[in-house]
Amino acid sequence: MDIGVVGLGRMGANMARRMARGGARVLAFDVDAAARAALAEERGVQSADSFAALASGLSGARVVLMMLPAGAVTEGALAGLLPLLSAGDTVVDGGNAYYKDSMARARNLSQRGIRHVDAGVSGGVHGLANGYCLMLGGTPEAVARFEPFARLLAPAPDRGWLHCGPSGAGHFAKMIHNGIEYGMMQAFAEGFALLAARKDLAIDPGKLAETWRHGSVVRSWLLDLGAEVLKTDADLASVAPVVADSGEGRWTALECVELGVPAPVITLALMERFSSQGKSDYARKLQAMMRAKFGGHAIIKA
Amino acid sequence: MDIGVVGLGRMGANMARRMARGGARVLAFDVDAAARAALAEERGVQSADSFAALASGLSGARVVLMMLPAGAVTEGALAGLLPLLSAGDTVVDGGNAYYKDSMARARNLSQRGIRHVDAGVSGGVHGLANGYCLMLGGTPEAVARFEPFARLLAPAPDRGWLHCGPSGAGHFAKMIHNGIEYGMMQAFAEGFALLAARKDLAIDPGKLAETWRHGSVVRSWLLDLGAEVLKTDADLASVAPVVADSGEGRWTALECVELGVPAPVITLALMERFSSQGKSDYARKLQAMMRAKFGGHAIIKA
Repeated sequence: MDIGVVGLGRMGANMARRMARGGARVLAFDVDAAARAALAEERGVQSADSFAALASGLSGARVVLMMLPAGAVTEGALAGLLPLLSAGDTVVDGGNAYYKDSMARARNLSQRGIRHVDAGVSGGVHGLANGYCLMLGGTPEAVARFEPFARLLAPAPDRGWLHCGPSGAGHFAKMIHNGIEYGMMQAFAEGFALLAARKDLAIDPGKLAETWRHGSVVRSWLLDLGAEVLKTDADLASVAPVVADSGEGRWTALECVELGVPAPVITLALMERFSSQGKSDYARKLQAMMRAKFGGHAIIKA
Repeated sequence: MDIGVVGLGRMGANMARRMARGGARVLAFDVDAAARAALAEERGVQSADSFAALASGLSGARVVLMMLPAGAVTEGALAGLLPLLSAGDTVVDGGNAYYKDSMARARNLSQRGIRHVDAGVSGGVHGLANGYCLMLGGTPEAVARFEPFARLLAPAPDRGWLHCGPSGAGHFAKMIHNGIEYGMMQAFAEGFALLAARKDLAIDPGKLAETWRHGSVVRSWLLDLGAEVLKTDADLASVAPVVADSGEGRWTALECVELGVPAPVITLALMERFSSQGKSDYARKLQAMMRAKFGGHAIIKA
């Protein structure tokens, strides 16, 4: 029950904790010494101060879980780690990688006899307490090697983790999951915005969200979080109206175009995030100017 | 703890049962004798075979819960019931009425001293076991009269019911709830459609939905229902691709236009339902013909 964890951010550190609390021996590495030190007091977690220390500190057929930002950071860590790994070792990528990249990585690693699992991980900062939902892609052998740890990370050993299919299937499932999440969040947000616009009805949004948590059709974990927010700060006066997007939504939209299968609400939810980032401003300015040209309508000066 | 229930369909009959099981004495009426008879064996439920029998069978300041289709059926029942009611009685409309109609009804009834509560009810056919989520609009006096029954109907006496605000606020909250529901359902449906289109990844949609129920960000009651469906019939071969809409989604879209507050995902989910009903077919035919005209592209003959 040895596992290496590379990347001790919000997700990686808590996953290391949860596996250690479940009985695994965790060897944890992060380029940031402070992140390593933050885990020092956790029983069952040891810190490795280099990839070499990580690789040499694991016994038998090694398993290394990478919890890093997708793209260059993950690639860089893999480049540092690979020379230290041997045939039979297993690399589990728990970051939000594009599933096509994961397929390519699995192919490349397999040429050296190294196994690759693409692991979609959901649960956010609440995963330490509640457990993580894990979507795994890879060969049966690769996933079997990681299974004991998946059972510790999941909400229960037999629930909340799935070998979805071959390499890429785990990150594909996570991509779809996040696309759905975009649509759900936008739907909730629109509803509460309409509610807030009818001040005359004076409906308390926090109380209504709390009420919906019990017996309604829209009850959900996202509503639970929304209720927490609205109960304490319904005005949201200190929050800028900007919603980041982190890749998964874009990939879902790309996938729907590639497949020719409509996902209009998911795609529109993504577009709304772009708008919130100011990316609709040019189009809006142009429309304002067109109205001025044909109708002499006043424009608002920037 | 006497209450009259008018309308013993799927919702009304189970709400009558739940209140009776909670200790209320329920006098139940439906124009359909078979619907009345179906409740005959329920302890605590008595059947009334006319509005007159219902009105005379209730003691004190009467409370009548109407669980009828919104619009003409609700109006007709009110017309039959009103001459039999007196000042101080309370009518609770648990149907999916348009909140502006509920506001008007409350005003009309108040001229005769009769109280009106607009009750948004969520929970569907599972409400009997789980309890119903209740969104109530009306004066404090009217809602207080209904409160003992709301506490029986809700998942718990102190949870899942709310006096939202003045008349109309209950049905307004329910309208927003259903608008959100439209968006959530569409988001889930799109995600599983993308999944189904990638047959090469062979991800079992029922197993994935079940996995997402545990620890994921999209866990929700709608996902619970989706998982039930997909576990037993992932192909959906026997289901026509037609989604009905029942008013609430349209009212939410109207509200967003009236307020000038965007609800694009909720509105698009409504449009997708219209499309599923064949209401995009003319526009599609016209586009096919335009392509034929400018590019000589073949059309598919109807």
